[in-house]
Amino acid sequence: MTCPLCQTQTVITETAHFIVIDAADEVFPCFVRVIAKDHVAEMSDLSPDQRKELWELLNRIELLMLEYVKPHKVNLAQFGNMVPHLHWHIIARWRDDSHFPECPWGPVQRTVPAEIQNERRALNQSFINALKAL
Amino acid sequence: MTCPLCQTQTVITETAHFIVIDAADEVFPCFVRVIAKDHVAEMSDLSPDQRKELWELLNRIELLMLEYVKPHKVNLAQFGNMVPHLHWHIIARWRDDSHFPECPWGPVQRTVPAEIQNERRALNQSFINALKAL
Repeated sequence: MTCPLCQTQTVITETAHFIVIDAADEVFPCFVRVIAKDHVAEMSDLSPDQRKELWELLNRIELLMLEYVKPHKVNLAQFGNMVPHLHWHIIARWRDDSHFPECPWGPVQRTVPAEIQNERRALNQSFINALKAL
Repeated sequence: MTCPLCQTQTVITETAHFIVIDAADEVFPCFVRVIAKDHVAEMSDLSPDQRKELWELLNRIELLMLEYVKPHKVNLAQFGNMVPHLHWHIIARWRDDSHFPECPWGPVQRTVPAEIQNERRALNQSFINALKAL
C-alpha cells in the first residue's frame, strides 16, 4: 500500500529533511504537521543531524504559534500508529477549546462558539503566513 | 495549588534538568514520563542547552525501549493541559495493544490477554533496569 504521507502535500514551509503542512480542521483552528521527507518510522531512525534539524524546526514553529496565535498551551505529539511514517502534530490549545484539558484525540468536552473559532482561524492565518516566511 | 509534578517522585534516572519516572499502569505495560525539574510549561521555556539535554534523553529512552521491549511503535507526547509543568510521555505500542492504532488517550479497541501483558511487563522490567544504569 502506498504511504499517504509519501504523497504530494501542500507545503507551508520546508527544511532539508522535513515539510510542514497545515492540518487545521473544523475542531482545531491552529494545527500544523511536520512530516519527514524520508519514509522512516521512529525518531531514532533519523540521523543525529536530522533530529537536530527537526527539533529546531519544532521549536521555531512553537515560538511562532505562541507569538501569533497566543494559545494557552502548545501540544506536541508523535504517534505514527495509523501511518508509520514519522510525523509530528503541533496543536494550539485553549482552556475553552472543544477537548481541553483532554488531549486532541480524547473525548470532546464542549462546543466552541463559532465567533471564537473564527477569531482563532484569523490568528492562525497570520501564523501560517509567518511560517511561510521561515 | 501545589503542582503535583513538583512533588517528590520515585526517580528511575535523571539528568541535570530532568527526571524519568515509571508511568506503566494496568493498560500500558511500558510507559515512562520525563519531567522537567523546573516548573516551566512549554518546550520554548527551556534554554537551548536544556532542550538539547531533553532531546538527547528522549532519544536514549527510545533506543533502550526499542532494544529491550521491542514494541511495534514508540509514541511521544507533550501536552501539559491538565498539569502545566513540562513533561513528556514515552509509550511502547503494539499492534494488538488495548488502544492501537488509536493514541493512548483515545478510545479502547480491545482487551489484551493477561499472559501478553505479563510478558510485556517482564520486558519492561529489563528496560527499567537498563534505564537505571544510564
